[in-house]
Amino acid sequence: MGLPTTSPDPPFRITRISHVVLAVTDLEASLAFYTGLIGLVVTEAGDDAVYLRGVEESAHHSVVLRRSDRACAERLGFRVAAEDDLDAAFAHFERRGLAAHWSDTVHQGRTLHATDVGGVAIELCVTMPSRPRRVLDFAAFRGAAATRIDHAQVHVTDPGAYAGFYTELGFRISEYATATGTPDAPLQGVFLARKGDMLDLVAFVNRGPRLHHVAFTVHDASIKLPAVCDRATSLGLRDCIDYGPGRHGLAPQQFLYLTDPDGHRIELVSYAYQLLDPEIEPVGWALDDPQGVTQWGPPPPASWWEQASPFRGVDVCSPYEPT
Amino acid sequence: MGLPTTSPDPPFRITRISHVVLAVTDLEASLAFYTGLIGLVVTEAGDDAVYLRGVEESAHHSVVLRRSDRACAERLGFRVAAEDDLDAAFAHFERRGLAAHWSDTVHQGRTLHATDVGGVAIELCVTMPSRPRRVLDFAAFRGAAATRIDHAQVHVTDPGAYAGFYTELGFRISEYATATGTPDAPLQGVFLARKGDMLDLVAFVNRGPRLHHVAFTVHDASIKLPAVCDRATSLGLRDCIDYGPGRHGLAPQQFLYLTDPDGHRIELVSYAYQLLDPEIEPVGWALDDPQGVTQWGPPPPASWWEQASPFRGVDVCSPYEPT
Amino acid sequence: MGLPTTSPDPPFRITRISHVVLAVTDLEASLAFYTGLIGLVVTEAGDDAVYLRGVEESAHHSVVLRRSDRACAERLGFRVAAEDDLDAAFAHFERRGLAAHWSDTVHQGRTLHATDVGGVAIELCVTMPSRPRRVLDFAAFRGAAATRIDHAQVHVTDPGAYAGFYTELGFRISEYATATGTPDAPLQGVFLARKGDMLDLVAFVNRGPRLHHVAFTVHDASIKLPAVCDRATSLGLRDCIDYGPGRHGLAPQQFLYLTDPDGHRIELVSYAYQLLDPEIEPVGWALDDPQGVTQWGPPPPASWWEQASPFRGVDVCSPYEPT
Amino acid sequence: MGLPTTSPDPPFRITRISHVVLAVTDLEASLAFYTGLIGLVVTEAGDDAVYLRGVEESAHHSVVLRRSDRACAERLGFRVAAEDDLDAAFAHFERRGLAAHWSDTVHQGRTLHATDVGGVAIELCVTMPSRPRRVLDFAAFRGAAATRIDHAQVHVTDPGAYAGFYTELGFRISEYATATGTPDAPLQGVFLARKGDMLDLVAFVNRGPRLHHVAFTVHDASIKLPAVCDRATSLGLRDCIDYGPGRHGLAPQQFLYLTDPDGHRIELVSYAYQLLDPEIEPVGWALDDPQGVTQWGPPPPASWWEQASPFRGVDVCSPYEPT
Repeated sequence: MGLPTTSPDPPFRITRISHVVLAVTDLEASLAFYTGLIGLVVTEAGDDAVYLRGVEESAHHSVVLRRSDRACAERLGFRVAAEDDLDAAFAHFERRGLAAHWSDTVHQGRTLHATDVGGVAIELCVTMPSRPRRVLDFAAFRGAAATRIDHAQVHVTDPGAYAGFYTELGFRISEYATATGTPDAPLQGVFLARKGDMLDLVAFVNRGPRLHHVAFTVHDASIKLPAVCDRATSLGLRDCIDYGPGRHGLAPQQFLYLTDPDGHRIELVSYAYQLLDPEIEPVGWALDDPQGVTQWGPPPPASWWEQASPFRGVDVCSPYEPT
Repeated sequence: MGLPTTSPDPPFRITRISHVVLAVTDLEASLAFYTGLIGLVVTEAGDDAVYLRGVEESAHHSVVLRRSDRACAERLGFRVAAEDDLDAAFAHFERRGLAAHWSDTVHQGRTLHATDVGGVAIELCVTMPSRPRRVLDFAAFRGAAATRIDHAQVHVTDPGAYAGFYTELGFRISEYATATGTPDAPLQGVFLARKGDMLDLVAFVNRGPRLHHVAFTVHDASIKLPAVCDRATSLGLRDCIDYGPGRHGLAPQQFLYLTDPDGHRIELVSYAYQLLDPEIEPVGWALDDPQGVTQWGPPPPASWWEQASPFRGVDVCSPYEPT
Repeated sequence: MGLPTTSPDPPFRITRISHVVLAVTDLEASLAFYTGLIGLVVTEAGDDAVYLRGVEESAHHSVVLRRSDRACAERLGFRVAAEDDLDAAFAHFERRGLAAHWSDTVHQGRTLHATDVGGVAIELCVTMPSRPRRVLDFAAFRGAAATRIDHAQVHVTDPGAYAGFYTELGFRISEYATATGTPDAPLQGVFLARKGDMLDLVAFVNRGPRLHHVAFTVHDASIKLPAVCDRATSLGLRDCIDYGPGRHGLAPQQFLYLTDPDGHRIELVSYAYQLLDPEIEPVGWALDDPQGVTQWGPPPPASWWEQASPFRGVDVCSPYEPT
Repeated sequence: MGLPTTSPDPPFRITRISHVVLAVTDLEASLAFYTGLIGLVVTEAGDDAVYLRGVEESAHHSVVLRRSDRACAERLGFRVAAEDDLDAAFAHFERRGLAAHWSDTVHQGRTLHATDVGGVAIELCVTMPSRPRRVLDFAAFRGAAATRIDHAQVHVTDPGAYAGFYTELGFRISEYATATGTPDAPLQGVFLARKGDMLDLVAFVNRGPRLHHVAFTVHDASIKLPAVCDRATSLGLRDCIDYGPGRHGLAPQQFLYLTDPDGHRIELVSYAYQLLDPEIEPVGWALDDPQGVTQWGPPPPASWWEQASPFRGVDVCSPYEPT
């Protein structure tokens, strides 16, 4: 089988994972979670939507919370390099027979809504309004003081096809999991990189499409991760702590997973390794390697494997093959 | 029932938990564990015994490892204030009908071997040879660079009687656990303090007498504890990680439990709170408080509750009442 | 000459450094400093005085701020073991011809006001009202979240006489500085220990009596100290940062010195080494050892050497001999 | 005047700062510094050259130490995207009248040696042999365990011309310093970004061309930076500590500067902010802003401003205008 190959000349240029839009049922409770524990900064707060960003982000938002009757993921957002890339993207989705339509989205300008090959609702935009980075505004930091969006992970029914779709768009495979740890077995998980380091987008086989988690980087992860647990516990939010602190072997980062009041999962991570050079080869892992998911410490709870947020209006299917 | 009262005028003056003597079956493997992960310093190494101390200890040893065919705990050591206290201690144990005999122990001078009311083999001494504190010798630090012995925990069949014995010797109860969290129910666990902070000796009800763990303090616990896990894993010693890193609620310290090659359990902890003032009252916890043992994170493994090191030649009994 | 010897049987029993009373000219500004940067907790706030404690202290206060027209130090407070010790202390000061009088001090009960041999205004008390330790109340932590008072340092004109006075009261000398690093030269600085670790009270030769600083312990000093600098800077309080973060060689602790709005100096420190055993000898340093005051990093500013807070109504004198 | 504009279509594609080649007079002493304090890993060691990389780098080297009679900087290395870019680079340097010639460099393949507009000796290559990332090999970590090369800073006589040269090659200006903090005054310092975050190459006005420092990232900077100082001091290498730990305001990173045995300066830094989006504008600072270079703590020593490594065989000139 083998791993799909990264296109040297993709049809349009995605530059990075950009943001996530989440539907939440109690906007005030969610806001307390994202500002008080994750430490995001409110850029703009309205009655029905709140826009947040990391303390080192100048982009207007990396998280949009929308008030809703029902919790779900709405969209994963990516940036593209220029306006031309939006048009090329539209043509590409049309060519592939995938849904795509234009949206004039506030704070994003011309935005392309599309569905990727795994059924994930994504959106592409070029720019956002700039806000001052709060990088030196330490007295305003709360909780983990997350610095920026790092990656998102989705559950999809066919990670191989999913990886093929994004490698055609220029993403590189940094690490992957199969039954054997080698690329001759079907892909069970894949880490897709575009922004210059290990990962923007991760896909694992499971009932999908669903959003498993969105991750944000923190400085001094060794101390920030237990400190967030201490803080959550003292705020009576102990049940928000889902898994960790610990360290992944596969895609090595220090991690802590939390769940927001609607069960959307947020990961806090240390900074990933750089991935820019042409000679770098993907790293393979056997999924049942006990040190793959968890280098040390207890394994993740069952909920971490099974629970994820569906996308609004998108049916969730089982994988074609049992996993 | 109520908690036992600390004697204002104890028959002899214990000043602190001092050391532990452990029988180990593979001295070289144990040495690698205690120096490479815990970060103790070797004061003296012989064919059959190795003496170790924390990087900030001037006392000759806080851990003695003795080569043996069978792993067990040999003795818990305490310091007393002066030579007179040794004689007073001998008389006290005689009076109480508890075994006590003199030993001329190398590196400790005149030493009293005794059995406490819980059947724990203890020894008392006044001085040890002084060695330079390695507090500034950072380049020699390994693993957690544990600074000093903090406390020991034993399993005993009757924690109430055990607390009574040590409060008569001037120990104070800092925290305790009962079914109700109040002192009108039988003591299930008790933290006994003598050296000026929260704890020297901890006793929980279980099959006993057995040594549950010996704890050492570390600076910068938030980073040292995960760093030791990373180091253990990369050395192939992942199975040494027993429980944590995490934070206790009852007797609040950040913790990581490791097990040595013979299964003796070592805890690394942050610095405990001070306990010197006469007005301080014991803090009670309900043992089934989910935040008592573990403020956040997964609960301890079953082994943490059940496994402990027997003392050489001492029968292990079940508690008188089911717990 | 030699170092003074610790009395094995002091006339009364001081147990620890307890608190400091500071006169401040802008109570609100001071409160912002002590709660927002040092991270002390307000136990009680009145119009003319605020009582604060560290997050792990159960004692009612370790800092008292009193509104005043003129900034100065009012008193250094110590705890004694029992009521009898207060009476013995009164007799001792009388015998030594040093001022001592009774005060019925709110939140301290019967309190002895006295002047020590160096002219420092001190007070002794037995108990204070207990408040819950905030040790697990992480969400309320601010700034350094200082845990407890650690020590105070004074400038005196004759450290040798000063050390003699306190060793007679049972204090031990942990470390000291002379021109030569050996005890045959006059004492220039001395670290006096009573509470079971390296230091309660420090005295250096200089114009005195003056209060040089009061120190508080912090957990995870490596990260707390730069974090407080970041926070101070972002609050526009950069000028509060006096010296550090760094590490002392003489009396090794990680340190950061800050000055409050009136110039009173506060030190944040890592936990000191234990000092309980009878065999421990004082450690000598040559004061001009470049690694004595500062193991690494730039030396202290001139202000750190020269500025200190006078005690109310106490004349400041120059040392008898040039230093 | 205004800042130079980044070319949207550069003549060739540099992807990142890649490596530095340093001539050293005592290879063994240098090796002890780079492995023992900086924590780089030796990829290959020969009699006359040693190749080192960060613990998360898969590229063969980010530092090359060459034995020499005279210490100097030899070359700054950059990666380009593909072989075509090397040819385009050659043509570009020819066109600009700047020296460029081919070298078949071991471990780099076809390599272009060139001189940039500031006189800095640079080299461009496409690939290097891959080595396993040591990211999980914690037991082998030493000192700061630096993860990867982050940026290099040079002294040049005309930062404005220098910025113009590199922005034409697609670099973006992230931050800059002028007398006024606005772009209408001559550039005194400029931070040039290519790899997706704040900086690859920094240039300040001074006698040049000279190499001021090369920087490497570390995880958990808050604790790694003081820990390296502690370690250096205990190894008798206190004089290696040049400036810091502290935090820069201009180009905000936590920093520690060390000097190697030949005086080459190495910086250890926290992770920089991301810089990928088209709308991001450069941030301007007034060079005399007291919080620009040093957010808090003492200012840099004079040596930090004045000393830098000349490039082999390249004359050092004074700036055209006094600064």
